[in-house]
Amino acid sequence: MEKYNYLLGYKNLRVYQDSEMFNFSIDSIILPNFVTLNKGVKKILDIGCGNLPISLILTTKTSAKITAVEIQKDVYDLAHKNLQLNKLEDRIELINDDICNLYKNIPTETFDVIVCNPPFFKVSSNSHLNKNDYKTIARHEIALNLDNIFSISKKLLKNNGTIAIVHRPERLIEIIDTMHKYNITPKRIQLVYPKKDKDANILLIEGTKNGNSGMKIMPPLFVHNSDGSYTENIKKYFE
Amino acid sequence: MEKYNYLLGYKNLRVYQDSEMFNFSIDSIILPNFVTLNKGVKKILDIGCGNLPISLILTTKTSAKITAVEIQKDVYDLAHKNLQLNKLEDRIELINDDICNLYKNIPTETFDVIVCNPPFFKVSSNSHLNKNDYKTIARHEIALNLDNIFSISKKLLKNNGTIAIVHRPERLIEIIDTMHKYNITPKRIQLVYPKKDKDANILLIEGTKNGNSGMKIMPPLFVHNSDGSYTENIKKYFE
Repeated sequence: MEKYNYLLGYKNLRVYQDSEMFNFSIDSIILPNFVTLNKGVKKILDIGCGNLPISLILTTKTSAKITAVEIQKDVYDLAHKNLQLNKLEDRIELINDDICNLYKNIPTETFDVIVCNPPFFKVSSNSHLNKNDYKTIARHEIALNLDNIFSISKKLLKNNGTIAIVHRPERLIEIIDTMHKYNITPKRIQLVYPKKDKDANILLIEGTKNGNSGMKIMPPLFVHNSDGSYTENIKKYFE
Repeated sequence: MEKYNYLLGYKNLRVYQDSEMFNFSIDSIILPNFVTLNKGVKKILDIGCGNLPISLILTTKTSAKITAVEIQKDVYDLAHKNLQLNKLEDRIELINDDICNLYKNIPTETFDVIVCNPPFFKVSSNSHLNKNDYKTIARHEIALNLDNIFSISKKLLKNNGTIAIVHRPERLIEIIDTMHKYNITPKRIQLVYPKKDKDANILLIEGTKNGNSGMKIMPPLFVHNSDGSYTENIKKYFE
């Protein structure tokens, strides 16, 4: 069943969501608010754009041209609806393809920034997954894994270009290792905690292609107060 | 000039500090409160123990036998004074030696836990440092660096033994790389922020020798409230 929502925090943006498919999550709201966007940023790639929340929010933050790629046809259709609904066709080029193939045909050093909210879960040989299911592809590393993301970034980012992803803290070590493998230097980390006294459950990490060493860990973000209400920092995004 | 202080947060512990030398810092208080100490822990090694704050605090948390090693004679003398002052000679074996040599004569797989508050600063070929100065050796990687710490840990830790260090967030990537090099798996990270809206300035990280992958990022610690007073979490250590 399709719902028609305002994209939280950005009242001039509207999105269709399919509750049978998946709603945009807090990850999609936080990532475009985390990524470094300076004035030199002209071209952005959104890998695995889903129903387009990240790219839509990015249009409010930068005048860069955005390329958004989604492998799943039904999800792409929803993204396309959202693109038209917001009349942002001139800002976002939306492509229905597998980025793991598509990138081979894109010239090297095309993008200043890449953003990605990838599948979080590893697939083991004994995972029993329905590989045709929307959610399975969005959540499990079937069509896109860390190695894909950073090898694509190595090719498509300009020198000193930036890749920012949202992921899970328990994968931090692998993420850093894979960034290294493709000469992406981790530069900024931010951790999101459901509440003050809980372990972090969202990791934001940004790296620079062929960057210098030296890293910052930004102030933490808490999603909920102890009474369960949203914190002021998160309300800024959600109101 | 020597001062005689209560070791904050542990009123039955007392320490001499030499203000000309260096005072124990918040790092020394936080690390023994971070490290995992289960009942199976029988032997602990404190590398670069300084005037002994970490080992002294550990005696209040575990009944394990502690070996504390300090390379600098004058700092060792102060640690020795503190050991006698607190009548803990039966709990802590204090050694004045260079751990980088000493460890070769210690049998493999001796310790359940290693703790270390190491020098934080890299030494570059053009650093102009007085290498005989107390503070220089305590702060710069002259006598002890990350490679030393984790290669020593690889040898001296029991299988699945734990090493916990306090360091600076900007060195996180190197720390993780060096842990990998010596088969130490990062398992727990905690970040300490001077205030809520500031970047992290202290990193606590714990790894397990030959451990499984999978890592937790613990709730953040803030040192000061926005009015500059200590937070409740830190007061627990300092009162």
